[in-house]
Amino acid sequence: MRSRDFELSIMYNQIQLKDIIEKAISGLSYNTEAEKLIEPVKYVLSIGGKRLRPVITLMACNMFSDKTDEAVMPAVGIEIFHNFTLVHDDIMDNAPLRRSLPTVHTKWNMNQAVLSGDVMAFIANDCFLQTPARCMTEVFRIFNKAAIEVCVGQQLDMDFEKAAAVTQNDYLKMIRLKTAVLIAASARIGAVIGGANEKDSEFLYNFGLNLGIAFQLQDDLLDIYGDTNVFGKIVGGDVMANKKTFLFVKAMETAAWKQQSRLHELFTMINPEPHAKVKEVMKIYEELNVKEAAGKMAKDYVKKAFGYLEKTSVAPERKQELTELANTMIGREK
Amino acid sequence: MRSRDFELSIMYNQIQLKDIIEKAISGLSYNTEAEKLIEPVKYVLSIGGKRLRPVITLMACNMFSDKTDEAVMPAVGIEIFHNFTLVHDDIMDNAPLRRSLPTVHTKWNMNQAVLSGDVMAFIANDCFLQTPARCMTEVFRIFNKAAIEVCVGQQLDMDFEKAAAVTQNDYLKMIRLKTAVLIAASARIGAVIGGANEKDSEFLYNFGLNLGIAFQLQDDLLDIYGDTNVFGKIVGGDVMANKKTFLFVKAMETAAWKQQSRLHELFTMINPEPHAKVKEVMKIYEELNVKEAAGKMAKDYVKKAFGYLEKTSVAPERKQELTELANTMIGREK
Repeated sequence: MRSRDFELSIMYNQIQLKDIIEKAISGLSYNTEAEKLIEPVKYVLSIGGKRLRPVITLMACNMFSDKTDEAVMPAVGIEIFHNFTLVHDDIMDNAPLRRSLPTVHTKWNMNQAVLSGDVMAFIANDCFLQTPARCMTEVFRIFNKAAIEVCVGQQLDMDFEKAAAVTQNDYLKMIRLKTAVLIAASARIGAVIGGANEKDSEFLYNFGLNLGIAFQLQDDLLDIYGDTNVFGKIVGGDVMANKKTFLFVKAMETAAWKQQSRLHELFTMINPEPHAKVKEVMKIYEELNVKEAAGKMAKDYVKKAFGYLEKTSVAPERKQELTELANTMIGREK
Repeated sequence: MRSRDFELSIMYNQIQLKDIIEKAISGLSYNTEAEKLIEPVKYVLSIGGKRLRPVITLMACNMFSDKTDEAVMPAVGIEIFHNFTLVHDDIMDNAPLRRSLPTVHTKWNMNQAVLSGDVMAFIANDCFLQTPARCMTEVFRIFNKAAIEVCVGQQLDMDFEKAAAVTQNDYLKMIRLKTAVLIAASARIGAVIGGANEKDSEFLYNFGLNLGIAFQLQDDLLDIYGDTNVFGKIVGGDVMANKKTFLFVKAMETAAWKQQSRLHELFTMINPEPHAKVKEVMKIYEELNVKEAAGKMAKDYVKKAFGYLEKTSVAPERKQELTELANTMIGREK
């Protein structure tokens, strides 16, 4: 008999699950034959963040089972993998800061960031190898498929920097691979460990996939329209860095020739005055209603995500925590 | 009944097994949503080399079983992992050439080498996920432990560049981790898939470990004393690059103060005349008999390796191929 058949089942909330993840991360033991290799790993993992992905794994597991402890190590594996991608992406983006602190290649050096990043990929493997035996291969396959797709997504993102034109569909494909598939895999892995059937784990995957796309669209919006004090980033950071976000791609697709060429000019300018640039770009975005378009699209993906959650064959009260988390992810100001 | 009980068992030789590996590598199918990501992967894997590690896996499997096909994908995984480390090591070493061809970061760029390297780690995972279910977790754990150790070894190697003094023991530890553990894991993984018992797979591991150390010592020797035409490298390349090889470490340990400080001078000189430098270093090495010391040490490790092979509980004729391979690895001129 599944635990969900009991009324007195244990449902953990976001704070409790984040705490479980934090404890598991700080309790990790490393091979210490080369302290220098592990120092940046500890640094990156201690900076924290919201631990959204592992919390989603635990919540998805908890939907189907009370034994969330079985999902802790794979959840930690996902978080370590995620941080591995951040370390290497920051090299590729030449980013000096992440969460207001120096990136690994800035604090140490490029070689150290490559190598300490690398070892994180294998530490993540180690975590997945601690999945309960009955579903280890399945869980590892779900993770590894996502890991390869995340690399493909990063490649598409790099290609976009040099691409003459990027369509809305190109962009959505890129964020699906770079961001959404890992959130999808996080949810599915939790479901599988929790004992969900094939259909339900597929639903959880699609829930995570659509949520992940909405999450990234929201991120693009917050860059320009977020409250700096809350969001902790510079307003228009993406614009200053000439990043082709959804807003830019949508604007280029919608714009008349004149606006289009001005946007192109602004995004290829050498040493522009940053605030004037952001202001002008914002004005064009306003004329083209791209904020509304992005907001509507994000809402549509959220709706799709919740549609999949609804279809899942567990009692509504077991969906509550994941529903709340998804709402804070999308309605988030930071 | 194990196949090794039959007299008509199938023993494949090195050429046949290398051919199986080549076919498996060229038969790999990749996610092609980002051709640019995979191009460098194909490039690196097509350059070839001796495929020593996967051949060792197949040979070790073949010692215990005729079903070497079960070991092909994990063997390919080891080769892909090995090539992943080469791509990232070449970034860290700033190496323009590998096997006389441009390295990935030279032919493409640094970011591409980081990312295409990364995806190779997950493609290797994919190969390990195709290990027969009965021993998948065990095989994956052996691999992953080695993978983490290889990163530790690379860290030690990087640390040595800046270290004031490196002892013989430091050096041996470094090559054990950077080079030997992967050869050890290659042998053990083959044995496990072939159905070896715990003791025999341990023997195979130690066979590979000692062989790997001997192999690296030999590599250090060949850099200076190899025949350039056969070996395909510049004589004294390590000396020119100020690499702290076994020869250098041994020389520094044995040398009197005067030679020691001259060696130190030579290895920290800015823009030396390369041939004069190599010639002078070789003269000091000769005075200190480091060639003989390295040769003797390599032989000792080979002897230890063969000792473990002898202990393995299979008929002598089943050890023949691995014995021959080990001999060519150590007696190799290239």
